Amino acid sequence: MWKRIAALLVLSLSLPALAAVKRFELTTHSSVFPVDQGVYVKGFSFNEMSPGPLLVVEEGDTVEIALRNEDFVAHGLSIHAANTQTSKFLGNVQPGEERVFRFQADFPGVFMYHCAPGGHGIMAHTMGGQHGMIVVEPKKKYRLEAELGRAPDLKLYLVQSEWYASGRDFFDGRATYVVFNGQNFRYVKEPIPVRPGDYIRIYFLNAGPNLTSTFHVVGGVWEYMYYQGNPDNVVKGSQTALAGPSDSWVIEWRVPPVEGDYTLVTHVFGTAIKGALGILRAKKDAPRVAEVRAEGPKALKEVPQEAKRVLDPYGLGTPTHEHTVRKAPDPALLQPVAVGERTLDPLPVTIQMVGNSFYPKVVEVPVGTTVEFVNEDVFDLLEGERTGRHDAVVVDVKGPEPFVSPKLGHGERWRVTFTQPGEYTYICSIHPYMRGIIRVYAPTPQEVHKGH
Amino acid sequence: MWKRIAALLVLSLSLPALAAVKRFELTTHSSVFPVDQGVYVKGFSFNEMSPGPLLVVEEGDTVEIALRNEDFVAHGLSIHAANTQTSKFLGNVQPGEERVFRFQADFPGVFMYHCAPGGHGIMAHTMGGQHGMIVVEPKKKYRLEAELGRAPDLKLYLVQSEWYASGRDFFDGRATYVVFNGQNFRYVKEPIPVRPGDYIRIYFLNAGPNLTSTFHVVGGVWEYMYYQGNPDNVVKGSQTALAGPSDSWVIEWRVPPVEGDYTLVTHVFGTAIKGALGILRAKKDAPRVAEVRAEGPKALKEVPQEAKRVLDPYGLGTPTHEHTVRKAPDPALLQPVAVGERTLDPLPVTIQMVGNSFYPKVVEVPVGTTVEFVNEDVFDLLEGERTGRHDAVVVDVKGPEPFVSPKLGHGERWRVTFTQPGEYTYICSIHPYMRGIIRVYAPTPQEVHKGH
Amino acid sequence: MWKRIAALLVLSLSLPALAAVKRFELTTHSSVFPVDQGVYVKGFSFNEMSPGPLLVVEEGDTVEIALRNEDFVAHGLSIHAANTQTSKFLGNVQPGEERVFRFQADFPGVFMYHCAPGGHGIMAHTMGGQHGMIVVEPKKKYRLEAELGRAPDLKLYLVQSEWYASGRDFFDGRATYVVFNGQNFRYVKEPIPVRPGDYIRIYFLNAGPNLTSTFHVVGGVWEYMYYQGNPDNVVKGSQTALAGPSDSWVIEWRVPPVEGDYTLVTHVFGTAIKGALGILRAKKDAPRVAEVRAEGPKALKEVPQEAKRVLDPYGLGTPTHEHTVRKAPDPALLQPVAVGERTLDPLPVTIQMVGNSFYPKVVEVPVGTTVEFVNEDVFDLLEGERTGRHDAVVVDVKGPEPFVSPKLGHGERWRVTFTQPGEYTYICSIHPYMRGIIRVYAPTPQEVHKGH
Repeated sequence: MWKRIAALLVLSLSLPALAAVKRFELTTHSSVFPVDQGVYVKGFSFNEMSPGPLLVVEEGDTVEIALRNEDFVAHGLSIHAANTQTSKFLGNVQPGEERVFRFQADFPGVFMYHCAPGGHGIMAHTMGGQHGMIVVEPKKKYRLEAELGRAPDLKLYLVQSEWYASGRDFFDGRATYVVFNGQNFRYVKEPIPVRPGDYIRIYFLNAGPNLTSTFHVVGGVWEYMYYQGNPDNVVKGSQTALAGPSDSWVIEWRVPPVEGDYTLVTHVFGTAIKGALGILRAKKDAPRVAEVRAEGPKALKEVPQEAKRVLDPYGLGTPTHEHTVRKAPDPALLQPVAVGERTLDPLPVTIQMVGNSFYPKVVEVPVGTTVEFVNEDVFDLLEGERTGRHDAVVVDVKGPEPFVSPKLGHGERWRVTFTQPGEYTYICSIHPYMRGIIRVYAPTPQEVHKGH
Repeated sequence: MWKRIAALLVLSLSLPALAAVKRFELTTHSSVFPVDQGVYVKGFSFNEMSPGPLLVVEEGDTVEIALRNEDFVAHGLSIHAANTQTSKFLGNVQPGEERVFRFQADFPGVFMYHCAPGGHGIMAHTMGGQHGMIVVEPKKKYRLEAELGRAPDLKLYLVQSEWYASGRDFFDGRATYVVFNGQNFRYVKEPIPVRPGDYIRIYFLNAGPNLTSTFHVVGGVWEYMYYQGNPDNVVKGSQTALAGPSDSWVIEWRVPPVEGDYTLVTHVFGTAIKGALGILRAKKDAPRVAEVRAEGPKALKEVPQEAKRVLDPYGLGTPTHEHTVRKAPDPALLQPVAVGERTLDPLPVTIQMVGNSFYPKVVEVPVGTTVEFVNEDVFDLLEGERTGRHDAVVVDVKGPEPFVSPKLGHGERWRVTFTQPGEYTYICSIHPYMRGIIRVYAPTPQEVHKGH
Repeated sequence: MWKRIAALLVLSLSLPALAAVKRFELTTHSSVFPVDQGVYVKGFSFNEMSPGPLLVVEEGDTVEIALRNEDFVAHGLSIHAANTQTSKFLGNVQPGEERVFRFQADFPGVFMYHCAPGGHGIMAHTMGGQHGMIVVEPKKKYRLEAELGRAPDLKLYLVQSEWYASGRDFFDGRATYVVFNGQNFRYVKEPIPVRPGDYIRIYFLNAGPNLTSTFHVVGGVWEYMYYQGNPDNVVKGSQTALAGPSDSWVIEWRVPPVEGDYTLVTHVFGTAIKGALGILRAKKDAPRVAEVRAEGPKALKEVPQEAKRVLDPYGLGTPTHEHTVRKAPDPALLQPVAVGERTLDPLPVTIQMVGNSFYPKVVEVPVGTTVEFVNEDVFDLLEGERTGRHDAVVVDVKGPEPFVSPKLGHGERWRVTFTQPGEYTYICSIHPYMRGIIRVYAPTPQEVHKGH
């Protein structure tokens, strides 16, 4: 079934005459990525993961990659570690087609790979999840390894990347989530165990596709960093590793002697707050983990029934991110309307809880309107000032219907319908400086004096 | 009143056995920051400033920091100069609590510190103003100091940071203001005096929380720059210092022999235009200033009565940035409506003057509508092409009511109400290429032919 | 007519006593830039191009620049290669005025120049197109030239920059287009010919004004890169060159031995997809091109009649980017309304095709509404997954009026008017995973049960 003709052509053109060959198989799919508790993203994958499989080779190796398109649209592959023509051989791979490609890994470092059918599709597919890390281990020793005379205790391979709800958001750089190895706060939920004094090497890749990262550890200064992972590009004593999309670093650091949580984070805080934060948990008797792989969790084929939120950048997800527009010639806003044989309920007015604030902060609605609160803050672990859980509690009311919402975790929603005029000032009881106002007015204008 | 138990615990765990100790006291508060003429931001502070106090120590020093929470919510502290556990000792500090923490400053450079109660709160509080600079002066001399054999004439400590109007804007990277040492165009209003030939050292920190900076001086090329302020990370002859959030540089430069204004600016011009621009004023007989400190002006406890604009990222400020939503089942847009016992005036349609343009550019409103112009351009000094002051002057009118607005400074507003149908093309008389249209139509549809 | 007085003053102040002088003439204009097929941007220019003329000098040269303002507003000049006072001599140049300025090019590298009337105008004019590249060739040889003992086969001067539709978009970093040397996908339409094995030197400048770039070639690893173009700032073996606005690199690379297309791209993919992608086309017998200049195509004085889209960041362009606001007291949305003596058609509801998705994805409109599709994806070359061409084809219909749009290229529009209630699920037939819904409802609310 797989077409081998193109593959043979490639072999004859690009096969280096070397013995040692590292072989990898990549397959392409439409996939559903589990990104948070009950939160899924629809997109494209390599080997049903995002990031795709981690590929590790040695400087000088011949690398063979078989790419098989098991999806219903064309895909492709760009491998940043390959200093040779790839577009011609790995571009525009049709459904059902397989290609085999070889290159020699001459440049050491940490590189990105991603889907590359060609032209516009390169960017559109990478946005949807088709990217991963390939590491070319240098012949030359990294500096701290040379100084200490031993290998790292932990190799931590880490891809930072973004999830988008729509192409418009992708164009504008408005990521919904920013993640380490595919999931929101993955290593907060499962901290990485280390021991005080451990020598750690981090292979950090910012896969983007849009945002800059400044990778940092709370409670540490990076001892040595190597831009792109090349041992010759040394930076000393840095609080941050600055990385644009497809930039990478190898970072060497020793865990300080004190036990506790060391938090990995992008110091671009408006993106860290969207999911890019994890924990190294240092304990004297921590279990030994030699390697954390830059691979997303196993993807699904279908969205599970229990999903509370689905992002589908290309198609339709759950309503919040569809930016639904209803053009309303008047009372349609307040009453159901007919669409052929069925009816549409009125659209609620949505108030986001986001960045410890309500948005919009002031909402003025006619009697009969339903207001929906949705918590867009992503970090809903812990409590008090440390959490992004929120509620909405009326503290000052001019009217008959004070409300108290339940405490909402990320992506959770709660609705209230107003049946009489009134004005409500409300706060979050967990973060009492959060403040908003809802004004409910009589739908028919009154004879009133016009004050200025 | 302050709890000393936790502090003692910390001391026993983290006290290095060294003699010289540099001690600093930090306190946390809810504060109101004066950001521009009549413009205030509500947020959180260290020592009632944003940036908080500048901390300067020497490489090898033992640093002791006492953190006292005088606010009504939990706070904390992350100090990037400390290569040791801090979260455990300085996280989640409750109102009324004090903690004392020591570390040894082993890594030279320019570092950020910021509030870190834990988790989500780290990002949310840093956004609100709780950040500052700590400098660890290296034992090794910076290169230009070694070459010249003398200390700098001026040490300029400079923090670039952002102010947000809401958490939504923070998530999306839409800063309202971008500032040097806390205020819009602070060093345009008070230029920093230098003399031609002066040897200047700039300690530059981009505190973010979101935007990248490319720090530049008009009329100069940075002679030497040191990434993160480490003397070993040298860059030569650079027009810009690229810095993501929490990135820093030490920059060495000699003022050229010619008198005049040398403008400090982030070359990310869509952010410089929001406030991040200052002046080094070179005169032969300029007064000697040895040091400019990276500290915001003294904050207030309450918003002054005369405020023309208040940003409150967490709560309610002045209306522009609340993104007020009024859901309108028809004539409510044009007439006051009842809310319990009082009434709401109709919402005006707002037209921004921003980046030398009107936004939106085309506005179509029914007779009876009030249109409000607001100047969002921040630099309202100087005149002509050099200023961001604007007005709105009708140049072509099909209708009865031509209008001329006054010249508006930053944050100033002006309203006009239209009582008859008509069409107005208007420009800014200072920047005559700025152009917009307002069309005022009859509120009831007419019997008209439908032209295509 | 030109004022020579200021020029003489400048000469006496800034003239170095050297023999060799490189002289350039810059003129300022209001211009119309051809940015894509049928797409134009109105702005300001140097020498009626954007980027303006490429200036190349040698380290140590005396450079003389004559600046003549042939426009109707004040302009100015900032030259990043000049380490000397410029604001005083080249700021606030009035219409009709000429200035002559000299400086000595002491710092080697790749520098930006841009308009600088002063203050706010510096940023506002640079946004409009007034920027360019000046190269100071170093005395010291770049490393690969020294190793190979010969000059490069191709010198590729490349400016990445952004085009904006409005000042609001400029403030928020929402570029409409991102371009290499002034035009969308310029070197996709006219690939740059090279031969396998060629030694290439790229002079890369990110002129911004807002976005970060990570400059990359598909099928290659940059052999040596020099930050700011200074031969002492070497980086080895990099997949990307990270550049904030006004950052620059000299990049040295040898075309691999295999023929094919090598794609130059910013790996900030949400911006590459807006136009910043080009092709080096490697063929054994390719014609020899020694130099590609960082200069935009010749600008026009007026917008041509056949324009399909005009962006005017300061004034009025074609409607899409005006963000037209019509405040509607009900039936006005559906019927023409009177504005003085003429009428306005109802505003259509616009659905963008953008980043392989529809936006907004769900549209609910009353019977009688016109929906307009507009293709915002910029890369409309090639086919299948490689193209950004789109259509809208109904695949599931509950109602009487299925529609099929034509295939739309960038900036093309198509309208459909709905006359009966119904529900339409539609896809793009080229990218069948793109999906949207239009619901057309009865304008008068029905008596319906309200289901929850």
